Amino acid sequence: MTVSVVVNSKEDQGRKASLDALTALVAQDISQCNEIILDRMQSPVALIPQLAGHLIAAGGKRLRPMLTLAAARLVGYQGNRQHKLAACVEFIHTATLLHDDVVDESDLRRGQASANALWGNKPSVLVGDFLFSRAFELMVEDGSLAVLAILSRASAIISEGEVLQLVTANDTETTEEAYLRVIESKTAALFAAACRIGAVVADRPAAEEEALDRYGMNLGVAFQLIDDVLDYSAQQEKLGKSIGDDFREGKITLPVILAFQRGNGEERAFWRRTLEDLDQAEDGSDLARALELMEKHNTLADSIGRARQYGDAAIADLALFPDSPAKTAMEDIIEFCIERAW
Amino acid sequence: MTVSVVVNSKEDQGRKASLDALTALVAQDISQCNEIILDRMQSPVALIPQLAGHLIAAGGKRLRPMLTLAAARLVGYQGNRQHKLAACVEFIHTATLLHDDVVDESDLRRGQASANALWGNKPSVLVGDFLFSRAFELMVEDGSLAVLAILSRASAIISEGEVLQLVTANDTETTEEAYLRVIESKTAALFAAACRIGAVVADRPAAEEEALDRYGMNLGVAFQLIDDVLDYSAQQEKLGKSIGDDFREGKITLPVILAFQRGNGEERAFWRRTLEDLDQAEDGSDLARALELMEKHNTLADSIGRARQYGDAAIADLALFPDSPAKTAMEDIIEFCIERAW
Repeated sequence: MTVSVVVNSKEDQGRKASLDALTALVAQDISQCNEIILDRMQSPVALIPQLAGHLIAAGGKRLRPMLTLAAARLVGYQGNRQHKLAACVEFIHTATLLHDDVVDESDLRRGQASANALWGNKPSVLVGDFLFSRAFELMVEDGSLAVLAILSRASAIISEGEVLQLVTANDTETTEEAYLRVIESKTAALFAAACRIGAVVADRPAAEEEALDRYGMNLGVAFQLIDDVLDYSAQQEKLGKSIGDDFREGKITLPVILAFQRGNGEERAFWRRTLEDLDQAEDGSDLARALELMEKHNTLADSIGRARQYGDAAIADLALFPDSPAKTAMEDIIEFCIERAW
Repeated sequence: MTVSVVVNSKEDQGRKASLDALTALVAQDISQCNEIILDRMQSPVALIPQLAGHLIAAGGKRLRPMLTLAAARLVGYQGNRQHKLAACVEFIHTATLLHDDVVDESDLRRGQASANALWGNKPSVLVGDFLFSRAFELMVEDGSLAVLAILSRASAIISEGEVLQLVTANDTETTEEAYLRVIESKTAALFAAACRIGAVVADRPAAEEEALDRYGMNLGVAFQLIDDVLDYSAQQEKLGKSIGDDFREGKITLPVILAFQRGNGEERAFWRRTLEDLDQAEDGSDLARALELMEKHNTLADSIGRARQYGDAAIADLALFPDSPAKTAMEDIIEFCIERAW
């Protein structure tokens, strides 16, 4: 019922898809960031650290805070403000996950039961609000209005993207362009902001800020494209996530958009029935048929190819910066995000 | 099935419970604040202003932003920063309402269908997030880290209070002290912050900031005490709200806490069955019995008396400031909040 997609892109060769270089580079930084996260998610209301801790301690990759830490290294920043700001980024991300779980009624998150499945919608919404507020408190402590501007703007864009996703849900006529606008907003905006603030704390020229912002945006789009591919891929099971969640919810992602566009009349009727009307066979045969159609039209591989284009753009965004271990690590992140797909 | 509570407190006499003086005082200010609200709740994602507008345009009293505007007048502020910051306060309040409606599964808000009843939980959570983020964007535009500190702290406290309320829900052993901690956090903290920033924009001495903070805190507690009384009061119907919502949800408010404490064994068993086990007769007879017990033990009147004490403290907090139309208006707010109960 699942399809393994193997793409041997030329660019992949000789580069291993691993976060090892990044992890080594920011090992000390991330440990200080983690201390701040654990310290500042505390509250006299015990349920808050319990619920937040469930998600934060669940072994997320800390990808977004690591981007802030790596970007600060890339521009040669010598201080320690990035630790607290990386914690802000993780708090905002965790808040959106908590609210997203409510929204999507999903019951798995990072291979574990989601917070809302364990505690219900109510605490998930409120603890998300707490983490979001706490992130802004930490930014105020840091004292940079520039950082506050970047992350408040990113937060507004994320929620716009999530609402836009709701509006386009179940609409098989969604264009690739509309889909890209959604993932730029709901996912890539925080990647971009996380990278940009690495240059802001170092007081670097606008050109470097903007290059890091573009790197994060391109990386974030590639990341989400792969995430959407994984929802239909055997790889997903290795990550402990269920397969076909997007299908069951009628979420319109690129593999579906391409399959709908390339499909004949009978196939389009299939997509309309299953994704617009959410009329799906309970025995999984409709999901199996969806996977067949994606394979027939090569849409998972093409979606990975699209992610690769964004990844290449992200590499180009780093051209401004001289070679360094940080630059290598940030190139590796791109590979890691894309090669998750195979 | 409802009980009208009439309390003729000595302090009430000769002061009419009206927001007229306040409304006249800040008429121009509130109109400028409203313009900012309408302008800045816009988004290219049409559902956001639709849903936010439903709540914001539904004729709320704008009590919290009016507090910011009145406080700025009280301290003689001559600029116009308070308009944008009052809009921030209203955005934060609206965000908490949207999230609270999700949380409480209530279907009425200000006498109309609540946003989540009309659009579902998903957009309510996300549009709340948008308004919250937008509030921080507006604060960043204003540029005061002091204001950002006050409102980010207040936002964190609000969510702590809401979670604490969940934790104490259905626990008939909740103490009056624990209840007061909840309402100080979930309601009064934003009143306090709204008032305090009126002094901050005017760059007034700490003593005035703190007096306004205490005024807002005491007013907010009085306001919520009355709100909780109204949930069991005939007055509620005039406000277009349903009666007994708190009872059906097993929310433990002061009228219940006092009735439980003063009740005999059989009465306590009744409260445990209806509020802890949520085992309630569908014909409304349990709500009727709850109202009888509250009348027997005088707990609605005593709760109003408690609100009156907080109101008196709020009046005392204004002693620092010389007499002025703003001071009179801020005293009237207290009366208005308390006299809603009868």
